[in-house]
Amino acid sequence: MKDWNEECAVFGIWGDPEAGKMTYLGLYAQQHRGQESAGISTLMESGKQIHHKGTGLVGEVFSADVLDTLVGKAAIGHVRYSTTGGNSLHNIQPLTAGLLNGPVAMAHNGNIVNSKPLRKELKRLGAIFQGTNDTECLLHLLARHPSNNLITCLKESVLRLDGAYSLVLLAKDMMVAMRDPRGMRPLVLGQRSLETGGFAWVVASETCAFDLIGAKYIREIEPGEIWWVDDQGEHSERFQAPTSPLAQCVFEYVYFSRPDSKVFGRSVYETRKRMGEILAEEDPIQADLVIPVPDSGTPAAIGYSQKSGVPFELGIIRNHYIGRTFIQPSQSIRSFGVKIKLNPQAEILKGKRVVVVDDSLVRGTTSQKIIRLVRQAGAKEVHFRIASPPTTGPCYYGVDTPEREELIANQKSLEGIRQFIDADTLSYLSIEGMMRAVGASKVGFCAACFDGQYPTPV
Amino acid sequence: MKDWNEECAVFGIWGDPEAGKMTYLGLYAQQHRGQESAGISTLMESGKQIHHKGTGLVGEVFSADVLDTLVGKAAIGHVRYSTTGGNSLHNIQPLTAGLLNGPVAMAHNGNIVNSKPLRKELKRLGAIFQGTNDTECLLHLLARHPSNNLITCLKESVLRLDGAYSLVLLAKDMMVAMRDPRGMRPLVLGQRSLETGGFAWVVASETCAFDLIGAKYIREIEPGEIWWVDDQGEHSERFQAPTSPLAQCVFEYVYFSRPDSKVFGRSVYETRKRMGEILAEEDPIQADLVIPVPDSGTPAAIGYSQKSGVPFELGIIRNHYIGRTFIQPSQSIRSFGVKIKLNPQAEILKGKRVVVVDDSLVRGTTSQKIIRLVRQAGAKEVHFRIASPPTTGPCYYGVDTPEREELIANQKSLEGIRQFIDADTLSYLSIEGMMRAVGASKVGFCAACFDGQYPTPV
Amino acid sequence: MKDWNEECAVFGIWGDPEAGKMTYLGLYAQQHRGQESAGISTLMESGKQIHHKGTGLVGEVFSADVLDTLVGKAAIGHVRYSTTGGNSLHNIQPLTAGLLNGPVAMAHNGNIVNSKPLRKELKRLGAIFQGTNDTECLLHLLARHPSNNLITCLKESVLRLDGAYSLVLLAKDMMVAMRDPRGMRPLVLGQRSLETGGFAWVVASETCAFDLIGAKYIREIEPGEIWWVDDQGEHSERFQAPTSPLAQCVFEYVYFSRPDSKVFGRSVYETRKRMGEILAEEDPIQADLVIPVPDSGTPAAIGYSQKSGVPFELGIIRNHYIGRTFIQPSQSIRSFGVKIKLNPQAEILKGKRVVVVDDSLVRGTTSQKIIRLVRQAGAKEVHFRIASPPTTGPCYYGVDTPEREELIANQKSLEGIRQFIDADTLSYLSIEGMMRAVGASKVGFCAACFDGQYPTPV
Amino acid sequence: MKDWNEECAVFGIWGDPEAGKMTYLGLYAQQHRGQESAGISTLMESGKQIHHKGTGLVGEVFSADVLDTLVGKAAIGHVRYSTTGGNSLHNIQPLTAGLLNGPVAMAHNGNIVNSKPLRKELKRLGAIFQGTNDTECLLHLLARHPSNNLITCLKESVLRLDGAYSLVLLAKDMMVAMRDPRGMRPLVLGQRSLETGGFAWVVASETCAFDLIGAKYIREIEPGEIWWVDDQGEHSERFQAPTSPLAQCVFEYVYFSRPDSKVFGRSVYETRKRMGEILAEEDPIQADLVIPVPDSGTPAAIGYSQKSGVPFELGIIRNHYIGRTFIQPSQSIRSFGVKIKLNPQAEILKGKRVVVVDDSLVRGTTSQKIIRLVRQAGAKEVHFRIASPPTTGPCYYGVDTPEREELIANQKSLEGIRQFIDADTLSYLSIEGMMRAVGASKVGFCAACFDGQYPTPV
Repeated sequence: MKDWNEECAVFGIWGDPEAGKMTYLGLYAQQHRGQESAGISTLMESGKQIHHKGTGLVGEVFSADVLDTLVGKAAIGHVRYSTTGGNSLHNIQPLTAGLLNGPVAMAHNGNIVNSKPLRKELKRLGAIFQGTNDTECLLHLLARHPSNNLITCLKESVLRLDGAYSLVLLAKDMMVAMRDPRGMRPLVLGQRSLETGGFAWVVASETCAFDLIGAKYIREIEPGEIWWVDDQGEHSERFQAPTSPLAQCVFEYVYFSRPDSKVFGRSVYETRKRMGEILAEEDPIQADLVIPVPDSGTPAAIGYSQKSGVPFELGIIRNHYIGRTFIQPSQSIRSFGVKIKLNPQAEILKGKRVVVVDDSLVRGTTSQKIIRLVRQAGAKEVHFRIASPPTTGPCYYGVDTPEREELIANQKSLEGIRQFIDADTLSYLSIEGMMRAVGASKVGFCAACFDGQYPTPV
Repeated sequence: MKDWNEECAVFGIWGDPEAGKMTYLGLYAQQHRGQESAGISTLMESGKQIHHKGTGLVGEVFSADVLDTLVGKAAIGHVRYSTTGGNSLHNIQPLTAGLLNGPVAMAHNGNIVNSKPLRKELKRLGAIFQGTNDTECLLHLLARHPSNNLITCLKESVLRLDGAYSLVLLAKDMMVAMRDPRGMRPLVLGQRSLETGGFAWVVASETCAFDLIGAKYIREIEPGEIWWVDDQGEHSERFQAPTSPLAQCVFEYVYFSRPDSKVFGRSVYETRKRMGEILAEEDPIQADLVIPVPDSGTPAAIGYSQKSGVPFELGIIRNHYIGRTFIQPSQSIRSFGVKIKLNPQAEILKGKRVVVVDDSLVRGTTSQKIIRLVRQAGAKEVHFRIASPPTTGPCYYGVDTPEREELIANQKSLEGIRQFIDADTLSYLSIEGMMRAVGASKVGFCAACFDGQYPTPV
Repeated sequence: MKDWNEECAVFGIWGDPEAGKMTYLGLYAQQHRGQESAGISTLMESGKQIHHKGTGLVGEVFSADVLDTLVGKAAIGHVRYSTTGGNSLHNIQPLTAGLLNGPVAMAHNGNIVNSKPLRKELKRLGAIFQGTNDTECLLHLLARHPSNNLITCLKESVLRLDGAYSLVLLAKDMMVAMRDPRGMRPLVLGQRSLETGGFAWVVASETCAFDLIGAKYIREIEPGEIWWVDDQGEHSERFQAPTSPLAQCVFEYVYFSRPDSKVFGRSVYETRKRMGEILAEEDPIQADLVIPVPDSGTPAAIGYSQKSGVPFELGIIRNHYIGRTFIQPSQSIRSFGVKIKLNPQAEILKGKRVVVVDDSLVRGTTSQKIIRLVRQAGAKEVHFRIASPPTTGPCYYGVDTPEREELIANQKSLEGIRQFIDADTLSYLSIEGMMRAVGASKVGFCAACFDGQYPTPV
Repeated sequence: MKDWNEECAVFGIWGDPEAGKMTYLGLYAQQHRGQESAGISTLMESGKQIHHKGTGLVGEVFSADVLDTLVGKAAIGHVRYSTTGGNSLHNIQPLTAGLLNGPVAMAHNGNIVNSKPLRKELKRLGAIFQGTNDTECLLHLLARHPSNNLITCLKESVLRLDGAYSLVLLAKDMMVAMRDPRGMRPLVLGQRSLETGGFAWVVASETCAFDLIGAKYIREIEPGEIWWVDDQGEHSERFQAPTSPLAQCVFEYVYFSRPDSKVFGRSVYETRKRMGEILAEEDPIQADLVIPVPDSGTPAAIGYSQKSGVPFELGIIRNHYIGRTFIQPSQSIRSFGVKIKLNPQAEILKGKRVVVVDDSLVRGTTSQKIIRLVRQAGAKEVHFRIASPPTTGPCYYGVDTPEREELIANQKSLEGIRQFIDADTLSYLSIEGMMRAVGASKVGFCAACFDGQYPTPV
């Protein structure tokens, strides 16, 4: 239903006797970042790797039997939303290769903006590409690097890449985590205490993966850092100085990350509530109720309610049973696509002045349907509040976004949008308000989809 | 995860060119009442019926191809939680039979308490039972009734039944809805306007099924009423006087029904909020936050917060991706079964005095794990509040409940339970409070699981 | 591809610790008698029964996991070709019922010719039929019989049935085998020695089932006999005097049975060879080669060759990989349906006078295609020889046959058929020749499909 | 059951509007050469290719839906028996690559004996290997070749390969067929007439693929020949002079090829019959019957019978229903693995002196079981005759064979083998006899598995 989708999450663990199973759980906890495919690679004592990938949810791709085969002390994994190259099995990560110095598996969150010319150059040199995944370029750069030292190969190869990359790599004797110098996508480091004493090292896109497996958050992998762990312990180097200012993705706070994660060092839930609070301050309105568009609008609606004093209610109930196999059988039901998930409650809304809070507004068609349903349920006034600024540009850094011309804020004025979605009033959070919410003291966010300031040439 | 589960929902529609598809949607909207199996029977113009049933969620049992075969102007359907007789395909409803006067399909929500002796008597007369479902008794009574008039057969046959039954039946030329004289299970009647003019008649267990297909709520099927529709229109008779007082299931408000449904004439969401409000009044406590155990505790927690003034927060985030195929792979994670769904937020809870609101407390083991997780997340005090009274007795009227000795309120004192779940304080809603919440003016509820007053001999 | 198909095989075993698995094998060995569905019922020490049924081949219906659940000391099973009532799961045997005196499972080979009026009568008395299977009538007769003695119930109930029935029944404390007084379908009795000493009793449609599980053939279950085994040992009675003469199905020798079975006391392979020998005697021809239409024509072709002295060759090679999922994708290949299985060898046939031997000729269309392919492969002359008489009537005793008007021998003269299939010469085995082949000394066969003498009113 | 298995078949067609479907049929006809996986690549007018691969039989891998997507005027396909590198999807052919000049798909029958050092060399140059398939080396050689002319690339790249290769390649504008200079594996060329006039070019491993789709055999692709077809028509060159003498695989006649194929210019069926005839001449014996081990021993047994005058009988009946999903459930049945497929007929064998003819004898364990069953069926004497010489060496050219020490003829004398399998007499065809059977006038066969004369260094 959402028009703006994160493409991936990564996970890695080193030194855990249940490494494969922990990766399964780490991916499950990050399922919201990608539902189309999943994969896990594990490392056995012998240096051999075992892989399993497939299309579907984590719980569908990995049966108990499969999971039992994913033995080893270390593992990495990946979930994926969708691909530039379609659903080909070749594009499901971790990507793997048998290099001269042993097997390598790699999981990547982000997008390489110069992959097209790089790909052409590598093909001219005889590289055979299996899929259409930009991650594959880095594998070929590694394969062709003359050094026998994997860390050297990696440090030098990534200098050829421009764009967003938070990546985890499993080799025959180490696990590596790297983050691009702009820090565009999140990547966090943690430790999981073992029953037998000692601990395993863990990396993930979001801290919610740590919570599920009982791991402790240590710190972020820094922009421009290469961190690795082997039998001697952990190591860290800079392969490049971090960009100043950084370009951390502000949309992680707006929508992508789970509310119970800590991203770029801040609680997502608290940040979203703060966005709702500032939204209430920036454009106050007289109303009887504040209701969220569930589930993504809920924290901001709670913040809005607390700041404004307007009571918070679950005016729209969400049905979570939908699943992947549900079909939309009827042509004769209006606003069906929205109704199948969301049901406004007439008993709550009848005759009320309602503030409806959503996290963002992209094409406008879904908002239009929601407002229609809220009105049919009897609301007297509908005041639509967006807990982020108008989205005016697509993202090129690992997010699946509509074309520029499909973004309603590019086509219509505020009043035009209000008329289109048929709200009584409409307002967005200001860019300044959003920046205040994500931490006034901290600079360094990419808000290109809101302000057009792309951190790379596009 | 829940220890107290509704066993079924029914649905029926007459006079809709998309009857089969509407039934699919009506079952999907009521999926929360039963996730183990589903079935649909449709009626063609010729009087022939088409059936499809299977185990799994509605979206799994009915593929697009299957749905296309379910043609006809009328249809009934059923979702089922679990069965006394196991997962046998024979027990999945609608049950069907080819009677002398044509095919009959029947969907039943409830439980016949005298089915065992009835079954034995019918077997002695040569009846062959296919499954272990109590609904099958009624089919045999119908088959053996000498009258050629189906309504006569039904009116006289149900007099042999004691217990709870809200049922929908599809014959070769009519659809029938009946509700036991105590009105134990809900059953509502509605109309769906057709694009071609006119309307279709609809029956369902809950009104949320009407909302999804755009049908209008008309009224309840009355206790002791037999209502039917055929090509001549609707008809209604009393087959028995309603019991006074009635014995409507109060647990429908506590947990079973969807919050956006209207049940026994009242909004479930409003009733749950009211339970939370009264809970706050009955035993106030100083606290920093009110958090629900999502999703079933949420309306009561909102009510609690509004009444007490303690701020409402989503202190526990629920992961909805779990699905039916998810496996619980690890032995080494404490409180795993709860963690896989619920993640308390340390950023919110750290150092706080927290009121945790849940809808009910049955065995206590899940509550114990939740409280442990909330404490691990840093809560300073945990005040557990249950928006219903202590559950002391099993249900015999169509609900899957633990044995009496597994109900913790039967085994331990309030203080004993508090110690077991390790809360700083624990309190339940009083029976009087609950009755006040469901409508002081309206008598006639079965609260046997709380007060031991069973409306039938057991 | 065949136009004349056996509908079923039955199997039963008593007193074997691997009863379920032996039944699996006994059904697999008889798979040629029915490929559409399969089922097994086992009996546990407790008197409880376990059932599993499904559509598909034996190897598809029973996974290793399922087979492990089919425990018990006794079991019966059934494979089925197709049904009058379609593919409904309700029609897959063994049929089961929970009678007052315990569970009963029943497997039936044959067809009850008076099932229609019987069914109506039983419905009028209140019986609920699940499927359209004629076997279900007997279950209802049993359920309604006043006696507590199952053998009494069976002996008296079957007197209501007219037609062909070889049946095996499993009750809570015994296994029963019965055969109609005309002896229309085969049913054999054997013993399987156990490693632990002693032996298990076995019944099957064909002896090839005994060979696979290492059981010894003892005798046929006699026409009109009811045989049973319980913890006291075996028992036998006559429920009706055998008809004189009997009406054993001669087509079992022509096509249905496996060549390595002994049926009605004679080797099928030897009988088929003998048919080929007599065919060679009845209408000799000058030729270079004798080739069978594989595999069913092979024994007769060997007999033909040995008697005539014309060399036997595999002039047509059969591809056995086809399987159930194979699709016939192309419209542009002539005689495709035949070619996909049969490939005539040009190297063998080129320029030769060829005798082609097939077991029977029903519609003629397949024979036409085979002859066309043999000619395309270069044969100079094609002499088509059928090792049975012209089929002129359908079968009503448990065989799936075309309508009377689709039988080419009903529509055309011998010369007309020869022209239609485009053979240089055509001849059939005479009825006398066939009877001589199945044993001149032994009377008592039903050859109604060849001679129109139906043993029951039809 | 067989211990010596062909690893692959290839197929290709150019210029047929149903190219994908014809390839499906061409693979189905060659299914005996590989049952573990299958794949098809088609070429659209646009130069784009479509691929589908999977594990299982052809009929399982390609559903009707999948087949409908495989559009285009040209296609190649592959079936595979098993792999050195396990069941990885990466190893299923056709292998594909997006080269600078467009897509390439390649199907290979044979084995490259120098692939290991070649692989290492290519990895050192940065090549990323996906699977463990030796065919992948050629793809990397092509990718790295500096020429823009694919034919030049191919001609020069294959000079790096040593071993057996019959391969078919599909590029964006042509289809290519090549065969190694020793001619080790078969590869034939044909034409399929189209309904619209004109014809399509076809290549296959065996002519039986031509028969099914109605194509005409033209000639073999010659050892050392590169043949290709594009929109201008067909072309042919020598990339290397054929080795003299050639090293065509003699085992194709013994067992691999279908009897109805013409291989290396001769009928397989005729050659096998001739082997049986010479076997009868070389070591005559007094006997009552000759029976084959079906199906592979049948042609030789017919030849043996015709030469010796001993009558041919189907003394062992084979059950073809086994399928891939059949499980072997019982531990308590002796010789089970053989019995499940083969049933000796007591009625035929009892008291007889029997010659049993099989195509080859590898480990001896299966032969031992067969002889035991034949004796249990009552045979008085068992004379085992092998229609090929003793197998003393494994194959390195694309065949899955046991280790040298598992070959019984390497471990035991003729008398030792006879005792092990418990035959009354045992004899093999002589090497001279085999060579006479495959054509005395024609030299140039590899019989290394019989005589140890490997045509390449091993």
